Amino acid sequence: MMPDIFPAWIALDWGTSNLRAWAMDDDNGVLAETESPDGMGTLAPEAFEPALLKAISGWLGAGRRVPVIACGMVGARQGWIEAPYISVPVTPGGDSFTLAPTTDPRIAVMIIAGLSQAEPADVMRGEETQVAGFAAENGGDGVLCLPGTHSKWVRLDKGVITRFNTMMTGEVFAMLTTHSVLRHSVAGEGWDEAAFARGVSESLANPTLLAQLFSIRAEQLLTGQTAVAAKSRLSGLLIGAEVAGTRDYWQGRTTVLIGASRLVRLYETALDMAGGQSQIADGGSLTLSGLVSAYERWKVTA
Amino acid sequence: MMPDIFPAWIALDWGTSNLRAWAMDDDNGVLAETESPDGMGTLAPEAFEPALLKAISGWLGAGRRVPVIACGMVGARQGWIEAPYISVPVTPGGDSFTLAPTTDPRIAVMIIAGLSQAEPADVMRGEETQVAGFAAENGGDGVLCLPGTHSKWVRLDKGVITRFNTMMTGEVFAMLTTHSVLRHSVAGEGWDEAAFARGVSESLANPTLLAQLFSIRAEQLLTGQTAVAAKSRLSGLLIGAEVAGTRDYWQGRTTVLIGASRLVRLYETALDMAGGQSQIADGGSLTLSGLVSAYERWKVTA
Repeated sequence: MMPDIFPAWIALDWGTSNLRAWAMDDDNGVLAETESPDGMGTLAPEAFEPALLKAISGWLGAGRRVPVIACGMVGARQGWIEAPYISVPVTPGGDSFTLAPTTDPRIAVMIIAGLSQAEPADVMRGEETQVAGFAAENGGDGVLCLPGTHSKWVRLDKGVITRFNTMMTGEVFAMLTTHSVLRHSVAGEGWDEAAFARGVSESLANPTLLAQLFSIRAEQLLTGQTAVAAKSRLSGLLIGAEVAGTRDYWQGRTTVLIGASRLVRLYETALDMAGGQSQIADGGSLTLSGLVSAYERWKVTA
Repeated sequence: MMPDIFPAWIALDWGTSNLRAWAMDDDNGVLAETESPDGMGTLAPEAFEPALLKAISGWLGAGRRVPVIACGMVGARQGWIEAPYISVPVTPGGDSFTLAPTTDPRIAVMIIAGLSQAEPADVMRGEETQVAGFAAENGGDGVLCLPGTHSKWVRLDKGVITRFNTMMTGEVFAMLTTHSVLRHSVAGEGWDEAAFARGVSESLANPTLLAQLFSIRAEQLLTGQTAVAAKSRLSGLLIGAEVAGTRDYWQGRTTVLIGASRLVRLYETALDMAGGQSQIADGGSLTLSGLVSAYERWKVTA
């Protein structure tokens, strides 16, 4: 059986928790798109090729090898094959590719390198492709913030990533609400916008988080503060501390926020309270733009 | 069988993980001492009296009721009976006692109240007795730091606790080393003093912890930094952030450090690097002094 779709190449965003692929034509138009929950986090190295083929086999025909340009945690040490880190300053997305070990003659998988920074030590894998997409679409200057388990702040100057910083805000929030003494105080669904704003304001005034966390528990003991207010304030304290600690990135510039819509809105509020400007961009579309840029550069160098 | 020891009263420090009791004579001399692992954390409310009797029954005779003055988490909501919080400013240790519900006629257990603070919201239970002991022994002015899972910083003016702040440093260290992505980077025993000092210095220069944590993982990926160095640096980052956030307590004063010897030495180093002065005091002896003060005040008001 022949496939209905004959892509010129395939764009692949393969992260920790899922895989997303686009069948692309010669003009970088999207012919088809697919998603799968086979994230890098669940796969042993030998399981990557079968997982990929399962997702894209409908796009592959006999007798030709389709280039697949991949970004994300697929290239981590715990992923398919480790793609190197390229040190900043660097033009993001696509001067270095690592060929994944495949046996199927219909694909050639090239994994985009991650980025590293010596001082302060930092690494990035996947986000560099969104930044490349932003540079391709909007020109080469900007500040980007990608909130998540590990937020990334990125400074882009004339198309070059000059520095970046990973903030463990999301993971610290998850740990504090799951494993710390605060877990008793922050259980439950719902959101309290005023309590969030209060937390942001406290952290902006005093970014030394350690001195503020315990008051969440104390307030619950002393005033019976609701768990929803406590959770919202904790979020505000953490995001406020992140914004306070990244002032040299966002001050006097517009920060481009990329991420899940609810989270991005919280960062927008916190930046606004701190006196910063922000705008929201669609991460999925930036990833695809970044993969297109990488493919164009790969074609030239291949 | 009659006991060999007839205490005038019993001093009791009953914390989360253990119980420590002293048989005291009329002149507040120590006749005997005992310890047990029956901490408040392992006991249901009805198990407190039997656990106490098991520890001190050798000091109890028929026909007389011995006063037991108790401090610590025994008076928490999850403890034997909730003793109230008294709001600062307050003279620590002993103006308010809560009688525990006992059935044995040989004991009368009085639990010392905890302390609270409205703004920023904070609570303390147990440490107030060490502060009272410090005030009794050394006069009524000072700054005290009690490192631990939740460090307490306390300001004492003319015998009155005027303010305090609980820092979640120890718990955040435990969470990051156990549950976060950093756990891979910090496993193993041992200590690297230079890496600790580097962490302190980084946090003093930039107390926004969230921006620094991830570099521990990045350094391991990029430079193969040892786990011992990573763990020591993480400790330095956290204690440095605590010291940076408590400058209004310790600047221009001598901080009295009370706690486990190894931990106290780390705080001594960090304070010294920040330009602060410190001295080390023995917590066990301060607890007993504080319980003596409380007993003397209880005698007057009883």
